Amino acid sequence: MTIKLNIKNASVNLASEECDALKKAAMSANASLHEKNGLGNQFLGWVNLPSSISEADIFEIESTAETLAETSDLVVIAGIGGSYLGAKAVLEALGDAFQPEQGRPKMLFAGHHLDEDYMYELIRMLHGKRVSCIVISKSGTTTEPALAFRILKQYIEKQYGKEDAAKRIVAVTDKEKGALKQTADKEGYKTFVIPDDVGGRFSVLTPVGLLPIAVAGFDIRLLLKGAADMELASGIDAAYENNICAQYAVVRNALYKQGKHIELLANYSPKLHFLAEWWKQLFGESEGKQNKGIFPASVDFTSDLHSLGQYIQQGERILFETVISIKNPQYEFIVPEDPENLDQLNFMATKRISEVNRMAELGTMLAHLDGGVPNIRIEIPELSAYFLGQLIYFFQKACGISGYMLEVNPFDQPGVEDYKRNMFALLGKPGYEAENQKLMTRIE
Amino acid sequence: MTIKLNIKNASVNLASEECDALKKAAMSANASLHEKNGLGNQFLGWVNLPSSISEADIFEIESTAETLAETSDLVVIAGIGGSYLGAKAVLEALGDAFQPEQGRPKMLFAGHHLDEDYMYELIRMLHGKRVSCIVISKSGTTTEPALAFRILKQYIEKQYGKEDAAKRIVAVTDKEKGALKQTADKEGYKTFVIPDDVGGRFSVLTPVGLLPIAVAGFDIRLLLKGAADMELASGIDAAYENNICAQYAVVRNALYKQGKHIELLANYSPKLHFLAEWWKQLFGESEGKQNKGIFPASVDFTSDLHSLGQYIQQGERILFETVISIKNPQYEFIVPEDPENLDQLNFMATKRISEVNRMAELGTMLAHLDGGVPNIRIEIPELSAYFLGQLIYFFQKACGISGYMLEVNPFDQPGVEDYKRNMFALLGKPGYEAENQKLMTRIE
Repeated sequence: MTIKLNIKNASVNLASEECDALKKAAMSANASLHEKNGLGNQFLGWVNLPSSISEADIFEIESTAETLAETSDLVVIAGIGGSYLGAKAVLEALGDAFQPEQGRPKMLFAGHHLDEDYMYELIRMLHGKRVSCIVISKSGTTTEPALAFRILKQYIEKQYGKEDAAKRIVAVTDKEKGALKQTADKEGYKTFVIPDDVGGRFSVLTPVGLLPIAVAGFDIRLLLKGAADMELASGIDAAYENNICAQYAVVRNALYKQGKHIELLANYSPKLHFLAEWWKQLFGESEGKQNKGIFPASVDFTSDLHSLGQYIQQGERILFETVISIKNPQYEFIVPEDPENLDQLNFMATKRISEVNRMAELGTMLAHLDGGVPNIRIEIPELSAYFLGQLIYFFQKACGISGYMLEVNPFDQPGVEDYKRNMFALLGKPGYEAENQKLMTRIE
Repeated sequence: MTIKLNIKNASVNLASEECDALKKAAMSANASLHEKNGLGNQFLGWVNLPSSISEADIFEIESTAETLAETSDLVVIAGIGGSYLGAKAVLEALGDAFQPEQGRPKMLFAGHHLDEDYMYELIRMLHGKRVSCIVISKSGTTTEPALAFRILKQYIEKQYGKEDAAKRIVAVTDKEKGALKQTADKEGYKTFVIPDDVGGRFSVLTPVGLLPIAVAGFDIRLLLKGAADMELASGIDAAYENNICAQYAVVRNALYKQGKHIELLANYSPKLHFLAEWWKQLFGESEGKQNKGIFPASVDFTSDLHSLGQYIQQGERILFETVISIKNPQYEFIVPEDPENLDQLNFMATKRISEVNRMAELGTMLAHLDGGVPNIRIEIPELSAYFLGQLIYFFQKACGISGYMLEVNPFDQPGVEDYKRNMFALLGKPGYEAENQKLMTRIE
């Protein structure tokens, strides 16, 4: 079984000449990703990652994860961007809404922003609990996670002493260079490698994502198997008709050309909220350059039908919707009968809640179509590690193809440096003195 | 002290003839809100709410809140849209990131979507805890909260017996009609009234928001005081120069006319995440109609500088940013020194984390300005109940003004019904048989 792409309601004339050209461009882009002859081709390690990870590497991740899980009530992950969102997305998608898996530590994040109160409340809450830390950074000098790790390292060393602290800290970083690698070697931390040819937003299937996911108790083998199956299904030999990654790229580019500037990734399960956040980075950072790119936004339905629903139905006609539709829930819960029926819900009693949810989804699709909002639908049998693996690779591959079709380099992020440079200058970092002078006059 | 609006970097020529016209329109709109002579004028109860709530009403909310807090480990709030987002926004903004206030119950939500697994996991988690429920619905027949309440009511009655259950359930609903009011009267629940002249998205300062906020242990008097002060500051006699609600409405409408279709509400404190969700409903549902309206989106910085930051810096130039900037954190946390300084952060050691955060904010503003993203800044002394009250009223008033300037009725939401009608038809609700036939053929 695989996830399916339903583009019947995408309001795109797939038989048009324009779409033929888009299909050719998509297939050529897909070939470039495999032949590594396009823009940013030094960052294509993710393309064959699922099929090429070794048993030894998986085993190493799993055994480190077991050790951390056994010795910790809480594991704090210090990371930002791709070193945060991939793991967070999978943990939320596969986890219980209210508690960790049986016998597994609670997973928390830090170093994904600079809020002073959050850091204070985090450290206050750690007291009295068995704490470990996974720090994830290629360089070790990215401000947010480096700052959080500096604090967490001191906290853990104070609680456990330097020697035992070293057993509670795992670093995911560069294979040989950088501040974090140096620290890890000096302190004797267990380390995992972020491959040179995999950018942050494409790194969830490296130890960056796999280690936290394994610590939380989820099956990284199934996740990888799902991704590997999608890798195969979208391979260089796959025909367009069978390659849903290429199809998704074609449709969204066709819609963009029609003036649809916003793509709304919609879910009907709150567990997918952070998958949408991960997706926003993936597509926003890959395509948003040279004054181009679809703006990626997201909605959690049916919640947001009572919020952004009005805008979607009748606001500016500049958006289309991509819905992630999960067929079967994990548990069964039937709408109970109520003899009084004051709330008038007895007509749905004895149905499953998920059937009500599904009719909300289909009813919404039709309503939004009637309102002029094209619909793309990604159909998933169930929210399991295996299908999540498929979905992750599906989006990554579609993003690479889509970026090439847009004629940008989907694997760089030159605009992310601008705020950092300004921040360093304003903070008086040595070497930024001239810049500091200029900026200070602008903020007065 | 009041919150401040900084529009110096909004890239709008405020001295232009066009802006003069907008200012006049804003002042006229503000007058209409007070004189109740504009579109949707039957829903203007929110305008004078902060200054007109009685001591008796506040006391009643507070004493019910105390009782619930004393008798509960967990309070589940069943509500959706405006009956969910306002309370959620305030609870997150004022609460600790990891735990309830001392001696206060944990606050959870249900009935804000239709996820079957969520309901299963919620009920499973309730076992063994002292549970109460606040159900919030004008009609009592909105599917999501009605369904959740049907389940929660049965659960609580089973645990405590019908008589004691009635003491653990509080209904916030219509003053005399509707399914929930009927149920509450029959079962003997304590009830609070949702005023007829206050729509859902403007209801956070009614018992809809105030009761959950008081249960969680926050000061609703200060919240109301802040709102009342902003009500006065933006009153019918306030000059444009002193009315920041009107100014915000003018600037965002000027930007919309320039082709800025997306407003990004940005925060630098994760506690404001749900305030942005509340704001999205407020503006999206008020303005998104007649094929018009700015699309409201949000970002949590610095997290999302490593996600949507690239798009904001260099993508399509169709967006502007409104930043909520909080001056002082609640706690103090200094960046620690590290003699080794491998992470190169010693240049910021001995500074407060919030100073680093502030320089990130200012550096980002300048970077985004240089990239062509206009900036509006709402400056708040601290994230307290008082200033949050100001902020809530500020946005509500600005939204009413802005909607009138756009020449829409900011107080209706005709598009929200479309999906509901389809959902009922697809679920086979009696009375929808003809519609069912038509829709079934479309989803096959």
